[in-house]
Amino acid sequence: MSSTHHNQSALKENEGIEQPKSTNELAIKKLQERRRKKLDSQELIKKIIAQDKVALSQAITLVESLNVQHHKQAEEIIQGCLPYANNSIRIGITGVPGVGKSTFIESFGKLLTSLGKKVAVLAIDPSSSVTGGSILGDKTRMEELVKDENAYIRPSASGDSLGGVARKTRESIILCEACGFDTILVETVGVGQSETAVHSMVDFFLLLNLAGAGDELQGIKRGIMEMADAVVINKADGQNQKKAQQAKLEYNRALHLFPKKTSDWTPKVTTCSALHHTGIKEIWELIINYIALTTENQYFYARRKEQNQYWLMETINENILMRFYNNPTIKLLITTNKKAVQNNELSPFAAAQLILKTYFKE
Amino acid sequence: MSSTHHNQSALKENEGIEQPKSTNELAIKKLQERRRKKLDSQELIKKIIAQDKVALSQAITLVESLNVQHHKQAEEIIQGCLPYANNSIRIGITGVPGVGKSTFIESFGKLLTSLGKKVAVLAIDPSSSVTGGSILGDKTRMEELVKDENAYIRPSASGDSLGGVARKTRESIILCEACGFDTILVETVGVGQSETAVHSMVDFFLLLNLAGAGDELQGIKRGIMEMADAVVINKADGQNQKKAQQAKLEYNRALHLFPKKTSDWTPKVTTCSALHHTGIKEIWELIINYIALTTENQYFYARRKEQNQYWLMETINENILMRFYNNPTIKLLITTNKKAVQNNELSPFAAAQLILKTYFKE
Repeated sequence: MSSTHHNQSALKENEGIEQPKSTNELAIKKLQERRRKKLDSQELIKKIIAQDKVALSQAITLVESLNVQHHKQAEEIIQGCLPYANNSIRIGITGVPGVGKSTFIESFGKLLTSLGKKVAVLAIDPSSSVTGGSILGDKTRMEELVKDENAYIRPSASGDSLGGVARKTRESIILCEACGFDTILVETVGVGQSETAVHSMVDFFLLLNLAGAGDELQGIKRGIMEMADAVVINKADGQNQKKAQQAKLEYNRALHLFPKKTSDWTPKVTTCSALHHTGIKEIWELIINYIALTTENQYFYARRKEQNQYWLMETINENILMRFYNNPTIKLLITTNKKAVQNNELSPFAAAQLILKTYFKE
Repeated sequence: MSSTHHNQSALKENEGIEQPKSTNELAIKKLQERRRKKLDSQELIKKIIAQDKVALSQAITLVESLNVQHHKQAEEIIQGCLPYANNSIRIGITGVPGVGKSTFIESFGKLLTSLGKKVAVLAIDPSSSVTGGSILGDKTRMEELVKDENAYIRPSASGDSLGGVARKTRESIILCEACGFDTILVETVGVGQSETAVHSMVDFFLLLNLAGAGDELQGIKRGIMEMADAVVINKADGQNQKKAQQAKLEYNRALHLFPKKTSDWTPKVTTCSALHHTGIKEIWELIINYIALTTENQYFYARRKEQNQYWLMETINENILMRFYNNPTIKLLITTNKKAVQNNELSPFAAAQLILKTYFKE
């Protein structure tokens, strides 16, 4: 195998192609370097602040890691980035599958970078652990934006609970901001609880809808409408335009059913065609108006404080309950007692007391 | 003071009225008896099963007590009553203040007792701790029902968290059922989270509305509509009748926006005048149809099992978090760290880790 042995051979051999070494020294060197780099939080922080996207990705990977050591390091990095964060507008974007979220983000993101903005796109997709895919997993759906120097697209973390995914995205926002991104788009699918999670980490919440897809008032039945600062009816082009205008009227009427927002902002309904880049600029202007209003009346800052507090409490609660439910003794006890409770042999409260006593005696 | 001394007095005295003893022996005897009774769980269970309303009230008082000893005894009694419980129809009734809940329950309750039913009325009113009053506190609002031998009305427990009040009501349902009540009405106010709590402990959920009070679709914006098995438009009398019919159409249309229920039941919209006792019988017939459908398709039993399990988990979660937040060290740590988090000096996740470490080291 060694080249010296090869040269001493008595057999006639053609020169041929030199065999590659079984150990690729360059690869090892690179790996070692990368490992060393990964361990050095201070260097990563410095690079992130210097707007190095590779360092940003490495840090987000640490945040997303399930390895406890990595998580400890991620915390260090976040803490180091914190003084450089928070200088952005955070925009949540939701809508059911098929509404054109990727096309919209591509068009909206390109407009923003053309205006000199630096745009980071993150996603919360709890369903990805089930389906195996993720909303942003297929980066080719944002062909233009992904090539843009002033844009950063990060596929969704998957294979975790919603709480876990949401926490990771929330932490990634801080890292993106420290890396100089001034506009953060957080995408989610219009199903389940993920919208509430996104709503609790953004300044502006945008609901993307289609005109006349199934029932007229998508979002109302999912309780999303109440959270929206803007309802945008996408695919308002060609023959669809008339229907989109009709839908706009209906959504406007529906929005009046909701109580006035504490932000003093009246939610707006607008139409656009992400495919044909029409109505996109108007959406950005609308968001600028929102930011102007809420920074003037201080709501913007009050809400961010409130959100910080919310995430403190959420993290604590999730952690405490996870510890409890992951306890092997408790797991067993819950399984047996659940049966008894379901069959009315034991009251839910008596069973709870029994399980809690065992836990707190341990 | 003693009567012998009185007789030996040299002073002339009229016979007069005998002075009452400073210690009322009969009262003491009664009190001792009551205390002894209160302590004897087995006797209370026996009396409850024998349909003794006084014993039922005593047991509910134990359930509502904040005294740990009482709570332990309450658990014994509930456990003893459990084999005799669960044979009832549990109906949740909600609606904003002014919708006429008391008048409705009075009218509906009287109909039920006239049909040979035994009706218990409980309430969940988390606001009562704030306002000092409670929905059912003013019993005179159900003048007729309160005098009815086959009815039992229990004012709401107050001065506690929603979780606490809800747990107590849930336990009281079991006691009422063991006491022979076959129809349990659980009332709540149409504000806040209390409706979700009631929904999770009843078989049938009824939303009481008015025609044209403010906006047309009350309930939709609070997410209540989705839980309702029936929307009842009250005060459909006199000049209101036309408006009520119009509202009925609108609610029917709105209900079609929601996905099909797992119970296979299509929610119904109906009108009534609780004051004039019209449309009340139709509501009961509707509920009978619901019970027939859901017992046949087994949903009724599946849902009760699911609810039992829900309450097991809820009780555990509430208890674990309460222990944490009531810890004096934690209280202090949260106060100081909350400030740091709000001001972006510390990330919510770093603060959470810090607090959790302290707690689990203790």
